[in-house]
Amino acid sequence: MECGLLFSGGKDSALAALLLEGFYDVTLVTAHFGVTDDWTHAEAAADALGFGFEERELDAAVASSATDRMHEDGYPRRGIQYAHEAALESVAADYQVIADGTRRDDRVPTVSRAVAQSLEDRHGVDYVAPLSGFGRGAVDRLVESNLVVESGPSEQIPKGDYETELRELIRQRWDVSVVETVFPDHEQTRVVGRS
Amino acid sequence: MECGLLFSGGKDSALAALLLEGFYDVTLVTAHFGVTDDWTHAEAAADALGFGFEERELDAAVASSATDRMHEDGYPRRGIQYAHEAALESVAADYQVIADGTRRDDRVPTVSRAVAQSLEDRHGVDYVAPLSGFGRGAVDRLVESNLVVESGPSEQIPKGDYETELRELIRQRWDVSVVETVFPDHEQTRVVGRS
Repeated sequence: MECGLLFSGGKDSALAALLLEGFYDVTLVTAHFGVTDDWTHAEAAADALGFGFEERELDAAVASSATDRMHEDGYPRRGIQYAHEAALESVAADYQVIADGTRRDDRVPTVSRAVAQSLEDRHGVDYVAPLSGFGRGAVDRLVESNLVVESGPSEQIPKGDYETELRELIRQRWDVSVVETVFPDHEQTRVVGRS
Repeated sequence: MECGLLFSGGKDSALAALLLEGFYDVTLVTAHFGVTDDWTHAEAAADALGFGFEERELDAAVASSATDRMHEDGYPRRGIQYAHEAALESVAADYQVIADGTRRDDRVPTVSRAVAQSLEDRHGVDYVAPLSGFGRGAVDRLVESNLVVESGPSEQIPKGDYETELRELIRQRWDVSVVETVFPDHEQTRVVGRS
């Protein structure tokens, strides 16, 4: 079965892909808003892992709503959640199985059982989250033994998906100080291969 | 890393093992109370799948408390949950990683994030539930394409783990009518190989 897995180029979604590759025909799908070319970082990571890759531009209205929420809240949670769900909806239109790299201990994005069931029922797909039964420690140890990653602050190791673009959009719409308020220093990872 | 995965001989725990085998050195562990030899069904399933196997007898007090709860409630939920947590505690003493086959849509047993974190902190292990991000439909489709299973009512296809023994203990302590009240007709599966 064809599985479209939302891919940021980071360690969680890469590990999710490794868990699923023996069971589905996995394509790594990077959602973006056409604002920057940061999705090419995700494409390079997908190539390094040996997976098929697709980039997909989401509607500009999604970016606008997501950044509105972030600006209003002063933190990224609702906006990221909104963009993530929009990305899942988009991928669900074209794959039999949709997946992401959400972990047990993630605070955002999260996909509740109700949201998962709704996606499945409305689109006739299976939604699978292979890392949702793995905590942070287990993920870190599996990453250590299966992937080669670079890590650093978000400015130096931009994520390949919509998160980097949402930062850029906030800078354009408001100010860099809003970016710094919404996204305090955050360590990112980028996958460069299998170990 | 050595992973002890609680194994009933049924499809869910078998599929969980297949998901983990590329990442851990997986041993299938069947917990029982020494009441019947039904654990040998789980051993046969483990052999058919090519995994190492361990049977482990839990304390009789666990069976006693679990059946007390089932008799009191008239349904199995609290008793199964109690036995499952006792089995996880036992396995956590001897493996670096402990696992089970709980699914996203399971009503029982469930392992909440808090229980998972507590197991991990107290025993210094990782607890992983590889199917907890998969719904019933996804599990069924993966079982169909990866495993050969027999299915039928519980009396004909006894589970290899403690559940069959709890039924037998309830029959011994009370009456077969209590068994029928607590466990209404339930379809079980037994894995006979890989497809």
